[in-house]
Amino acid sequence: MATVSLIGDEEASAEVLAVFDDIRATRGTDYVNNFWRALAHDPALLAATWARLKDVMAPGALDPLVKEMLYIAVSVANGCEYCIHSHTAAARAKGMTPEQHGELLAVIGMAMQTNGLVSALQVPVEDSFRA
Amino acid sequence: MATVSLIGDEEASAEVLAVFDDIRATRGTDYVNNFWRALAHDPALLAATWARLKDVMAPGALDPLVKEMLYIAVSVANGCEYCIHSHTAAARAKGMTPEQHGELLAVIGMAMQTNGLVSALQVPVEDSFRA
Amino acid sequence: MATVSLIGDEEASAEVLAVFDDIRATRGTDYVNNFWRALAHDPALLAATWARLKDVMAPGALDPLVKEMLYIAVSVANGCEYCIHSHTAAARAKGMTPEQHGELLAVIGMAMQTNGLVSALQVPVEDSFRA
Amino acid sequence: MATVSLIGDEEASAEVLAVFDDIRATRGTDYVNNFWRALAHDPALLAATWARLKDVMAPGALDPLVKEMLYIAVSVANGCEYCIHSHTAAARAKGMTPEQHGELLAVIGMAMQTNGLVSALQVPVEDSFRA
Amino acid sequence: MATVSLIGDEEASAEVLAVFDDIRATRGTDYVNNFWRALAHDPALLAATWARLKDVMAPGALDPLVKEMLYIAVSVANGCEYCIHSHTAAARAKGMTPEQHGELLAVIGMAMQTNGLVSALQVPVEDSFRA
Amino acid sequence: MATVSLIGDEEASAEVLAVFDDIRATRGTDYVNNFWRALAHDPALLAATWARLKDVMAPGALDPLVKEMLYIAVSVANGCEYCIHSHTAAARAKGMTPEQHGELLAVIGMAMQTNGLVSALQVPVEDSFRA
Repeated sequence: MATVSLIGDEEASAEVLAVFDDIRATRGTDYVNNFWRALAHDPALLAATWARLKDVMAPGALDPLVKEMLYIAVSVANGCEYCIHSHTAAARAKGMTPEQHGELLAVIGMAMQTNGLVSALQVPVEDSFRA
Repeated sequence: MATVSLIGDEEASAEVLAVFDDIRATRGTDYVNNFWRALAHDPALLAATWARLKDVMAPGALDPLVKEMLYIAVSVANGCEYCIHSHTAAARAKGMTPEQHGELLAVIGMAMQTNGLVSALQVPVEDSFRA
Repeated sequence: MATVSLIGDEEASAEVLAVFDDIRATRGTDYVNNFWRALAHDPALLAATWARLKDVMAPGALDPLVKEMLYIAVSVANGCEYCIHSHTAAARAKGMTPEQHGELLAVIGMAMQTNGLVSALQVPVEDSFRA
Repeated sequence: MATVSLIGDEEASAEVLAVFDDIRATRGTDYVNNFWRALAHDPALLAATWARLKDVMAPGALDPLVKEMLYIAVSVANGCEYCIHSHTAAARAKGMTPEQHGELLAVIGMAMQTNGLVSALQVPVEDSFRA
Repeated sequence: MATVSLIGDEEASAEVLAVFDDIRATRGTDYVNNFWRALAHDPALLAATWARLKDVMAPGALDPLVKEMLYIAVSVANGCEYCIHSHTAAARAKGMTPEQHGELLAVIGMAMQTNGLVSALQVPVEDSFRA
Repeated sequence: MATVSLIGDEEASAEVLAVFDDIRATRGTDYVNNFWRALAHDPALLAATWARLKDVMAPGALDPLVKEMLYIAVSVANGCEYCIHSHTAAARAKGMTPEQHGELLAVIGMAMQTNGLVSALQVPVEDSFRA
């Protein structure tokens, strides 16, 4: 259970419903997932978060599948269960293969490992790496 | 300064030098960066870490630039200064454009933000997201 | 399930019961929550933790509701499920309104986002910010 | 040094300068701090981040000093050096007293400690804490 | 539920079965735990991870129980539920007493607390601490 | 530089000096390290933190060197630079050998790696691991 209730369509304000409808239209689905229904207790926070997510995750210099995998990488390091599940599902929906998933896991595991080693060693940064 | 000294070539054992030489050959450079020189106090740990990194970061189902960006994403979430600098430099060497860097930052920022919102809300995972 | 059993009143030592009783008296409730019952396997750790918490969370230069919200902020960044639930409940008991909760979430989300951006950019600290 | 250069006014585009000017006007200062100058390599990211920060940190149901302290709490848990320095300076500018700073530290320390204990014990959440 | 299915013996490839068999032989048990069954979707990642874990956790300059407790300490700080449960069970199987568990918790809690205080204070490192 | 000044003996109150003197006496040194001098702005927080640290790190069911290594493990996962330096120095002062340091690093690296893999896979906890 969440720390707040999940707002159903029937109890949503017009402002909230407009966001829900845009989520549905953008994704081509009838489904509005739990994150948005929990966030809807604060309509302004809901609207701002959705508007920004829609913009950031759109195709650009990086393709949407790469963006989903980057999202998973951050969420794994932060241990965000819901985020890992929802973005892994999204990455699959955008074509992530089992081989790509395996390599994603391997890179995450490697990065976690060397993050720990570097942290323990407090390795000084070379000037050549700096901008 | 690190918690250990950095091992120079002149004080390196044969086992350590073999790793340093493979790093140079694999990367086509004379330079061995500080991380490996700090790790070299434990030759077995050095050898195992390098062997694994070389394997994980090689081209595969994901291209090397995507792997570097995933590495950055994890390192940013963990706040690993050295890792962020070295892998940002590596990503640039592999062709990351300023536009791609900007989108990488935007996705990381977005993921951090929703990780925090989801954590605060403790959003329950939909069954439809589970494998 | 926890990594240890939860200690009920009937199996608690006199030292543990004294802490449980002080928790009840301080909070004006009959209920002793699971955290303390898990911690009670080490009576000295239980007593030291409770004594310190009671002192730190008491009214002072910051009011108790602000302290609860700060507690939530730290717990969210650390992803501590139990802590988020228990301190959100405590904040509500101390008068946190839905509007305050919404703003708390917005600040946490913003801080997470800029923490990630700053980490990725490794922004140098201005001298003017230092004590 | 950052992973990117810091954009000075003289090299800033009109879009970036408009954000810098709004930062100066909003804060009543001539100074634009390093974070914004690093972020300015991506004008759209700069503009979106500043617009959101300005909105989130404005007075509302929580007062601006409380928001700064919440920002510090998240940044400390994430270990973001720049963020801790800049928001501690901001909190002082908004009136944080040494006594309030001391209590802020004490609450953060306590939350970190019990986050660790709860995590180690994997304490199950009571139904009574759930929304 | 995991983000992938758990691979049973009957659906495992020869390469995966060889790892499962080595896990059983090394641990003197018939049981292969869920982590390995989830990881088995990528046989190379499974084999590399198991080979490294087996080597790292073997008796050496540190005894196996100390290694398990170190593993718990890292997993607690990262909030990894499965890791905390599995390594707490492993530590008990290797002889961890309730008194040792209590002291492990106390050290973790203390470290979390001072990590937070040091982070908030941004304490400069003494030269005398550096290698 | 810290977010606060470091309190020297000459400006310390009697309450603070008593803690500094106990640190010196307990450790058999004239040196009071920066952490305590930063914390001394809040004498009550200083006294409570030192009293607890002294108690937790004393010999008990775990030996002091093991406790220092556990402290390092937590501090590495949290990326606390000062804590890593000071407790690595303390571990060496208590006899940590280079071989033990190497194994400590290897265990931390392994734990970080599998924490990441488990988080990405969201592996369900076996009932047999629960208390």
